[in-house]
Formats: sequence, structure tokens, C-alpha cells
Amino acid sequence: MSSKEAIRSKFVDEFPTLVEELKQVLVKYGMPEEAIQWYEKNLNYNTPGGKLNRGLSVVDTYAILKGYNSVDDLSKDEYRRVAVLGWCVELLQAYFLVADDMMDKSITRRGQPCWYRVEDVGEIAINDAFMLEAAIYELLKKYFRSESYYIDLIELFHDVTFQTEMGQLLDLITAPEESVDLSKFSLEKHSFIVIFKTAYYSFYLPVALAMYVAGNHDPKDLKQAQDVLIPLGEYFQIQDDYLDCFGTPEQIGKIGTDIQDNKCSWVVNKALQLATPEQRKLLDENYGRKNSEMEAKCKKLFNEMGIDKYYHEYEEKVAEDLRAKIAQVDESRGFKGEVLTAFLNKVYKRSK
Amino acid sequence: MSSKEAIRSKFVDEFPTLVEELKQVLVKYGMPEEAIQWYEKNLNYNTPGGKLNRGLSVVDTYAILKGYNSVDDLSKDEYRRVAVLGWCVELLQAYFLVADDMMDKSITRRGQPCWYRVEDVGEIAINDAFMLEAAIYELLKKYFRSESYYIDLIELFHDVTFQTEMGQLLDLITAPEESVDLSKFSLEKHSFIVIFKTAYYSFYLPVALAMYVAGNHDPKDLKQAQDVLIPLGEYFQIQDDYLDCFGTPEQIGKIGTDIQDNKCSWVVNKALQLATPEQRKLLDENYGRKNSEMEAKCKKLFNEMGIDKYYHEYEEKVAEDLRAKIAQVDESRGFKGEVLTAFLNKVYKRSK
Repeated sequence: MSSKEAIRSKFVDEFPTLVEELKQVLVKYGMPEEAIQWYEKNLNYNTPGGKLNRGLSVVDTYAILKGYNSVDDLSKDEYRRVAVLGWCVELLQAYFLVADDMMDKSITRRGQPCWYRVEDVGEIAINDAFMLEAAIYELLKKYFRSESYYIDLIELFHDVTFQTEMGQLLDLITAPEESVDLSKFSLEKHSFIVIFKTAYYSFYLPVALAMYVAGNHDPKDLKQAQDVLIPLGEYFQIQDDYLDCFGTPEQIGKIGTDIQDNKCSWVVNKALQLATPEQRKLLDENYGRKNSEMEAKCKKLFNEMGIDKYYHEYEEKVAEDLRAKIAQVDESRGFKGEVLTAFLNKVYKRSK
Repeated sequence: MSSKEAIRSKFVDEFPTLVEELKQVLVKYGMPEEAIQWYEKNLNYNTPGGKLNRGLSVVDTYAILKGYNSVDDLSKDEYRRVAVLGWCVELLQAYFLVADDMMDKSITRRGQPCWYRVEDVGEIAINDAFMLEAAIYELLKKYFRSESYYIDLIELFHDVTFQTEMGQLLDLITAPEESVDLSKFSLEKHSFIVIFKTAYYSFYLPVALAMYVAGNHDPKDLKQAQDVLIPLGEYFQIQDDYLDCFGTPEQIGKIGTDIQDNKCSWVVNKALQLATPEQRKLLDENYGRKNSEMEAKCKKLFNEMGIDKYYHEYEEKVAEDLRAKIAQVDESRGFKGEVLTAFLNKVYKRSK
């Protein structure tokens, strides 16, 4: 088995060819050179550079489904085709992140300025986001057009894109950064937001893509995968919310800002569910303000209320439920519960 | 034959049902009510309200291809299906316009504030644009999934979307509103921008959609349509550029702003092609400035150079070429040149 870094490198090494192929689409249309160069820069600035977990999951899942011991056992062509789908997931994420950063007025992303803050880009970033999305369908056409499941791949991307946009919409109208109204928050709404905004595209999509290519795409099997991956994705995001508040900067590699940013986080929603009227008053007056003393008051309250304890209870319960569900996976059509275990192990008790 | 207003009303009357069906997608996902209402408002604010020429063209073209005398001869179901495709074109346009208005920092659109300027919307408009695009594929799935040409409709929308985005990109980097650099302009680049940014989605797309539903979608026939509709779309946009500068406000129903907005218009490109060094200097110093005296200097120069005369020569030549091309259309597979004549007649010598 290759090292984690070697596996990542192999995947990253596929990207330049895809950029070249996408540039060729523009060349064939006769696009002037400056526009081609712009698109190349857009693709390279916004697509690689993250952890690439979503893209790598497509390859990993495919290898497990095919019974390979390592991704090195895939033939060159076979690797390329699943890697293309992995990069399509990363392109989808790039499309969302370029737009999210504009909507959230973020400053940096992956250690560099957000794309819309790069010189000469500005609002053009909106059109650039569109063109990242368009790349997905160009690549699907090039690599999968002759496959019987081509239309399924397209519909899957359409569905997951729409789901993510719905989650993003609900998040934006529930927790606008400027106006705090905790009466809009609830654990139920939080669940909806994270499932739609994160779980579908980050957890279900990579696995479903690998299942199509591996030939394990009976609707019953897709449903088995979804029934585990959606709650697992929800758990992942709840963990993220927990770490933002309770993780140390050394642990999570950044300083949490959810409280000051008025985020509809699991932590505040759990607190709201349990709060006495006085505690609720404290939150109404201090949550979501760009003020570190107010932030500290919220944090102190979360600690007093033992939100971390509720988190650990939730984590143990959800992990146990998911393990039970995975143990009952019907493998008679060739789908493998191991795919889901691999995901669960990546999430359970991670600290960053 | 129904009046123009009755034809438009019939088309407009289909839209509320589509909004209802799109809302039902969100209802089925369990989306909270406030998000469903937001999406409804987004759809209704941004999709109808324009001239609807593109959407109506799908219906008109279909009626001609099927040999109907009027759109009233279509059965209820038949009308609905082509109207759905018409609304998909309008949704595509809505998607672009919501984004374009943000990129251009426009103030009003169709007599109302641009969507991003509506209270509480702001940058959320980016995600709303995405959700307008997603509506297209939801509707295609609902109405055309069982058709053999379903994948063709999807690929057509993908291709035209990408083409329009390429045109928009080239326009944005060639003619940024803040920095004037006329050396970036050329008639060739203008041609590229208008063909990609406008002609594909406004002229080719509606006809190609109607051709699929009518069963006239041999690649040779699609090519015959494209070979006329793309130059016709270019002519339409050149005419638009001409009218912005030379049309009276009474004629065009608005006050032209292309000169002050540093637009890469046919008028300035034609002038640049013919300018003496002195004339070029005048343009370099006065074009694209938010200053009505400078604008007047450019306009005076365009008049002195006889740009309107060159426009009329161009118009006569292109109309003649297109008529000749249409006369040679091969109708042996059932495609009809009349479809193209109908379009040409709408554009030729229009004054608004």
C-alpha cells in the first residue's frame, strides 16, 4: 500500500491533463488566447490545493468495490477514469467555494487570497464559478459519453448540485452574518442545512460515482450507501462545529470563528435546545457579535452547559448506529459494507 | 392567428404551474417553508417580465415545423411541452442576467431593481442564480426523461451555457468598466463576444430545442439552422450596438450608455478599424468615461466617420447573404427554411 502522500500525488498528477483538455475545448471554439489563459488560471487556482478528500474518495471507493488491495493495482486507463470523476467532485466543490467566499466575504481560502480578491478578478469570479461547473459536464462528456450510465452520472451531479444549493440557501437565510436572530435556529434546521449543504456532495456523491463505474449501481445499493453516508456526513459536520468551539488551535490548525460569525452551528443549537430563559438571554445578547468578550461569554456558557459532553454522547451513539447499519448491509449484489466502514473510520474521533 | 399579446399571454400562463412543480421538488426534500418561499420569489422575480422572445421562439418554431397555422392548433399537452422548453430558455437567461447585473453593478432590470439590490438579497443572489439554472434540469427531467432525445436536450443546454459563459468572460476581460484600453478591442473579438455571449443561447438554442421535439434533429439540419442563426444573432447584436448609439430614445425606449460604459460595441470597433491616428487619439482620450461631454465627442466622431452608413451597408449585405443561405436550405428531411425566415424578418430593419 502506497503512503498517503503518494496516493495524493498520483491523483494530483492527473489534473494538468484535464486542464489541458478543457483548454482544448476553448481552442477548438477559436477563443482568443487571453481568455484561454484566464480559464487555465481559474482552474488551477481554485481546484487543487485543498485536502482533496472528496476526489480521493472516488478512487478509494472504486478500489474497494473492485477488490483491489491498493490504488496501484488499477490499470492506467482505469485509474484515469475514476480520477476524472474525483476531479469532477473537486470542480463542483471549487464552483461552490468560489461563490461561497463571495457570499461570506471571506478573505483567504487554503492559505491564499479568495479568488474574487485576486487582482483584476473581482466580480468576474461569478462567471468563473459558472465555468468551473461547466468543466464537470465537459469532462463527463469526454470520458463517459459512450457508457450506459452516462445519463445517471449527469443526473447525479445535477441532483447533488441542486441539493447543495438548497442547503446553502437555507444556511444563508437562517444565519445572515449581519443580523442575529436565534429564533430562526433549531437542531432540526441545522440537520437539514448540513445534510444538504455538505453531506450529499461530500459523502454520498463520491461513493455513488465510484459505484456507477464499478458496476454496483442497483438502486437498492445506492440507497444502502446513502442511508449510511448522509447521517455520516451530518456527523462529520457536527464534529466540525464541535471542534470549531471546543478544539484547540493546535488541534484544528485554525482559530474557530463560528460564534462571532453567527454560524448556525450544532453547538449553539444544542445550547438553545437546553437553555434556561437566562441562558437564552445571554446568547441572544452575545452570540454572533464581532466582539471577543461576547464570544468568550458564549463559550463559557457552552462549557457550563456541558455541550461537549452532549457531543461525545451524540458521537458514540451515531457511530454505534452506523456500525450496526453497516453490519446489516446486503452484499448479495456485490456492494461492500467495507466502503462505508472506510468512511466511518476516517470520521470517527478525528481531531482535525 | 391570435394577436401577439394573446400568444404571449398563453405562454406566460404556463409559468405558475412550473413554479408550483419546482416548489414541490423542495417540498419533497422537506425544505423549510421560508426557503421554499424564497425560491418561489426568486423564480417569479427573475424569470418572466422581459419580452420573452427567446421562450416564445421555441413555440413558434415548433408550430412552423409541424405545419400548424397558429400556436392554437397545438394540443394542450403538446403546447405545454414546448412551452416548458421555452421557459427553460428564459430560466437560462434569468440565470445569466442575475449574475451579469452583479458583475456589471447594474441598478435596474426590466423596470425593477436588479435582484441583488432587493432588500435582504444582496450576495445571496449568486446562489439564487445557481438555483435558476438548476430549475432547467429539474424541468427537463420531469417532462422529457422518457424521450430518446433527453440526453441531447441536456447536452445542448450544457454546451450553450458554456458558450455563453465563454462569451461573457471574453467580454469582461476585454472591456472592464473601470479601465479603458482600446487596443484590446477589434471587430474580430467583437464578433466572437456577441456570437458566444448572445447568438448561441438567444437564436440557436430555441430553434434547436423545437427541432428535437418536432423530430427534425438530424445533425445536418441542426447545422443548417446553426449556419443561419449564428450570423443572424451576430447581426441582431450589431444592430443593438448601432441603435444604442444612433437610435433616438423615442425609438429604442432607453438612453444608450455604451460609450460611457466602455462597451466593446460594434460602433467603436468599426471606428477603430477606420480611424486616422488623430481620430484614434480622440477615442483613446474620450471613450469609456463617465462624462457626457466626452461621450458627445465620441458620438460626433462616429457621425463624422459615417459609421451609420457602414452599418446600413453591413445590414443590407448580411440580410442578403442570409436570404440566399435560407433559399438553399435542404428541406428533404422535413426541416423548413421558413423557420429561419421568420427569425430574419423579426430582426431585419427593426428599430427597437
